[in-house]
Amino acid sequence: VVDIYGKRIVIAWPDNLVENIEDISIDAKIRVRKPYYLVSNEWKSGKTIVNVGGVEIGGSRIVVAAGPCAVEDEDILMEIAKAVKRAGASILRGGAYKPRTSPYSFQGLGEKGLKILKRVSEAVGLPVVTEVMDTRDVELVKSYADMIQIGARNSQNFTLLREVGRAKIPVLLKRGFGMTVEEWLLAAEYILSEGNGDVVLCERGIRTFEKSTRFTIDIGGMVIAKMQTHLPIAADPSHPAGNRDLVEPLALAAIVAGADMLIVEVHANPSKALSDSEQQLTVEMFEKLMKRLKAVAEAIGRSI
Amino acid sequence: VVDIYGKRIVIAWPDNLVENIEDISIDAKIRVRKPYYLVSNEWKSGKTIVNVGGVEIGGSRIVVAAGPCAVEDEDILMEIAKAVKRAGASILRGGAYKPRTSPYSFQGLGEKGLKILKRVSEAVGLPVVTEVMDTRDVELVKSYADMIQIGARNSQNFTLLREVGRAKIPVLLKRGFGMTVEEWLLAAEYILSEGNGDVVLCERGIRTFEKSTRFTIDIGGMVIAKMQTHLPIAADPSHPAGNRDLVEPLALAAIVAGADMLIVEVHANPSKALSDSEQQLTVEMFEKLMKRLKAVAEAIGRSI
Amino acid sequence: VVDIYGKRIVIAWPDNLVENIEDISIDAKIRVRKPYYLVSNEWKSGKTIVNVGGVEIGGSRIVVAAGPCAVEDEDILMEIAKAVKRAGASILRGGAYKPRTSPYSFQGLGEKGLKILKRVSEAVGLPVVTEVMDTRDVELVKSYADMIQIGARNSQNFTLLREVGRAKIPVLLKRGFGMTVEEWLLAAEYILSEGNGDVVLCERGIRTFEKSTRFTIDIGGMVIAKMQTHLPIAADPSHPAGNRDLVEPLALAAIVAGADMLIVEVHANPSKALSDSEQQLTVEMFEKLMKRLKAVAEAIGRSI
Amino acid sequence: VVDIYGKRIVIAWPDNLVENIEDISIDAKIRVRKPYYLVSNEWKSGKTIVNVGGVEIGGSRIVVAAGPCAVEDEDILMEIAKAVKRAGASILRGGAYKPRTSPYSFQGLGEKGLKILKRVSEAVGLPVVTEVMDTRDVELVKSYADMIQIGARNSQNFTLLREVGRAKIPVLLKRGFGMTVEEWLLAAEYILSEGNGDVVLCERGIRTFEKSTRFTIDIGGMVIAKMQTHLPIAADPSHPAGNRDLVEPLALAAIVAGADMLIVEVHANPSKALSDSEQQLTVEMFEKLMKRLKAVAEAIGRSI
Repeated sequence: VVDIYGKRIVIAWPDNLVENIEDISIDAKIRVRKPYYLVSNEWKSGKTIVNVGGVEIGGSRIVVAAGPCAVEDEDILMEIAKAVKRAGASILRGGAYKPRTSPYSFQGLGEKGLKILKRVSEAVGLPVVTEVMDTRDVELVKSYADMIQIGARNSQNFTLLREVGRAKIPVLLKRGFGMTVEEWLLAAEYILSEGNGDVVLCERGIRTFEKSTRFTIDIGGMVIAKMQTHLPIAADPSHPAGNRDLVEPLALAAIVAGADMLIVEVHANPSKALSDSEQQLTVEMFEKLMKRLKAVAEAIGRSI
Repeated sequence: VVDIYGKRIVIAWPDNLVENIEDISIDAKIRVRKPYYLVSNEWKSGKTIVNVGGVEIGGSRIVVAAGPCAVEDEDILMEIAKAVKRAGASILRGGAYKPRTSPYSFQGLGEKGLKILKRVSEAVGLPVVTEVMDTRDVELVKSYADMIQIGARNSQNFTLLREVGRAKIPVLLKRGFGMTVEEWLLAAEYILSEGNGDVVLCERGIRTFEKSTRFTIDIGGMVIAKMQTHLPIAADPSHPAGNRDLVEPLALAAIVAGADMLIVEVHANPSKALSDSEQQLTVEMFEKLMKRLKAVAEAIGRSI
Repeated sequence: VVDIYGKRIVIAWPDNLVENIEDISIDAKIRVRKPYYLVSNEWKSGKTIVNVGGVEIGGSRIVVAAGPCAVEDEDILMEIAKAVKRAGASILRGGAYKPRTSPYSFQGLGEKGLKILKRVSEAVGLPVVTEVMDTRDVELVKSYADMIQIGARNSQNFTLLREVGRAKIPVLLKRGFGMTVEEWLLAAEYILSEGNGDVVLCERGIRTFEKSTRFTIDIGGMVIAKMQTHLPIAADPSHPAGNRDLVEPLALAAIVAGADMLIVEVHANPSKALSDSEQQLTVEMFEKLMKRLKAVAEAIGRSI
Repeated sequence: VVDIYGKRIVIAWPDNLVENIEDISIDAKIRVRKPYYLVSNEWKSGKTIVNVGGVEIGGSRIVVAAGPCAVEDEDILMEIAKAVKRAGASILRGGAYKPRTSPYSFQGLGEKGLKILKRVSEAVGLPVVTEVMDTRDVELVKSYADMIQIGARNSQNFTLLREVGRAKIPVLLKRGFGMTVEEWLLAAEYILSEGNGDVVLCERGIRTFEKSTRFTIDIGGMVIAKMQTHLPIAADPSHPAGNRDLVEPLALAAIVAGADMLIVEVHANPSKALSDSEQQLTVEMFEKLMKRLKAVAEAIGRSI
């Protein structure tokens, strides 16, 4: 039994255990054609708006979240936050828990980073999105952040998905780089099936044979997802780029293809960043990006 | 020795046979850092404009080629050609030789198709781009077409690349679906190394694990190619889509990311087409696409 | 500071925070050429033997773990366990916590399943390997199992990797289907860096464009991993197969290419299995597989 | 109408043009479930044996073709040919026409190379397989070679496939690195549909995100192909390896998974080879490989 979008729903599934199916009400014994149900726009036709600290994602206005890859220092973050707000960003991003390929790389500041994020957020007036990596940290992160990010490497960490579902906080769900569009929708279904309908799906590039970019942004897959679901769609142009010169064309491409939100890495001094230094935009590049995004958004009948 | 862009060039390569290197003039004994040379914008900084029957590709104006997947019938082609011209297309596309996965599928009309293309081209006033698949057909196709297309499956058919290089006719070089960006540039280098500098590189989607679209359009790879070469870049949004509803978002994405040309499949009655019926646009959809393309092109300071 | 393989080690890393580097002893200030260190056979040249309830993995004898995809029922598991032991398996596999793509699929019996596994393990005399999905469950699973499996979808769940590192129990680390060989070794490095050196790396297929098999078993990547590390290498021929007729050829291929262990799905009645019914072997097929494995193992100078 | 395997066949296809279907005899108006027909083992159940200069491919005995990547010099080729024959190879390989990614790399000796191949072949007593890249060269290559290779980059060069079909000479058809198993079978169907039934399908690695090997040998896809067709299956362990240390494990894996033939690059002095120097085996490595292949072949009830 799920309480979601003001409704009480019971979902039956062909291969559920028989004992689970017994206590199911009649109207829910629908044999759905697709493996996902609550995320499908066949079930909920109107677009869902996700409210993050007063910022609405999924409406006509395109939302831009910006900030450094990782929270490193309060002064630097304050400088970046003010700059991205001035340029038009409406959400601040920054990692306190960093999923790093190597155990010897900088792993983030943890709760210290969350506290910095919170203070900067309040000082500058931008809600905050930050990543959580462990089921045990969900409540802690929720107490500091306005939106929780599930990163690409945890996109099929099903116990974590259930936990953020139960936490009832807006979730930015990155697509795993080895994940199909259907699996991505099913990962969101895990969150919704716990009663949390505030999910934004974020394309961030898949892994392909092509290595001239860090990942291959799957614009077509993003469009397919948008055709299937009522949830808002975001794009992260920074991670597939792997190189700051590519961020702008990928961001523009995502917007005209239908993205409702962008999440962009910006740093006051990218070359000194402790992670992802190659792909973080300078503040000047971000300002230029925002101008071009505004022009293109207007051309497709949206705003930023 | 290559005569290209008004210059006479001799290229030396580290692993060339010694006897070839002996008769090389001094200024060409450059040890290039990249495996390609003539296509590189380190060698030729200004953007190359490719002139196809009076239509300039690579300038500020974005060029749209449109038409059916295959030439099937003169009346139908005439109807499509008039419609796409009215909507703003400036080149007519249509296949007379069709590379089909199965030997039992419709293989195209061959020379009969070329003749139809030529008559329609002249009647409507649109130059023609059409595919060639065999070295023995290059001269024949050249006598009917304004631009020759090398399809994805022949993108590393090196003897065909050399032959169209020698034919000195504009070439639309599709990227193979299993080909890296570097190999794509090297395929173009084969054509340029025969003295034909009129090459347009066309991204048409790569093969990845994601199957919700027919191919994965590699917007990032297209941008990387554009950063490396002086040659114009095109995109084919129809083949990666595999579904006509995806063509518009992919076309818009390609344009804002920097494509100089689009090649779009349009059919008067797609459901009756002998090939690719799922992905060809109706005339009405193409008209709507052109309107949105114009708005977006203006937003990035270009025209259509 | 890591205590591993009877040594006390301090590892310095170029991009570590300066405050961490300060308290480092001299002999560890090695600038390693590769991003991983403890898993590398440049550091530890002798092959590591992992002991799982008395069964040695990594020696001349090839170890076969077999059992159902999921623990469903005690009687069925007992029947399967006896059969696979009789056929030559030396470890019992079976999932109590199942990572399922859909939240509505059978999710495993949880602790009830662990208890069944433990009783069957003791009755039949086979140590048990089973998966853990949540950091909060590691201690519980450890109290029932002889070896913990980290599944493909959690292969970059770094907090879980650290937790099984601290648990000091043998770990079967599946390679993620979107994970490079280097990232796989780095995932193991997370476990070793917590002082747990009992890790077996398990290839289970990567995601590629080819869809005639469920995943593409990467025999070459498995060989590369074996060349780089002192840890034992396993292969799972069931998941890439996705079809029981393919399990035998893939298992044989993995063995001759150097796998030290196989983990195979076997069910008494695969068509009634609650998950992966297509790829589980029948007992008869498993007996035939073991005979062929023995013949091939001998041909390469090993035993089963 | 196709004359093949001693039968006269007419094939009808659902989407054929109506005018083509008219002159078709009744017994061939079969609506096949799969897109390929002549290559299918549903149509021809017995395994096909392809005879190459007296060497039978597809029987119980596994055939090994070996030789240098490219023909460079008659003395070197003679030395290699004698060595590989002594070690147990029964076919000589060597390229006269080389498909090279760069136009400036060594392109092969052309007809001069074919003549060297022919003389060495006759002197040593090994039939020859060599690649053809251009429809115009098929007759020439046929006059020197016992088997024609279609390389990975020409695997969907359909006019070339038809031409070697008409040439009625044994064909080694490499799988393209971006090609599905179904497309590979359809490429063979092109050759068979011209009446040439002597085709051996050769797996040589596909392109995936994993870059620790040059290509990813698709053992599973090779097994699927073998399950679908009556044609013999070969494997090329050299190109996916990209590194000579990987050739042996990949060769062994291919054999136990069911390959009927191997094609291996061997050079008397690999470090001086004009192409693929990293992956060619030394003669000593090839001798060791042959010994291990023999042991493993016997273990699966075959011989070499």
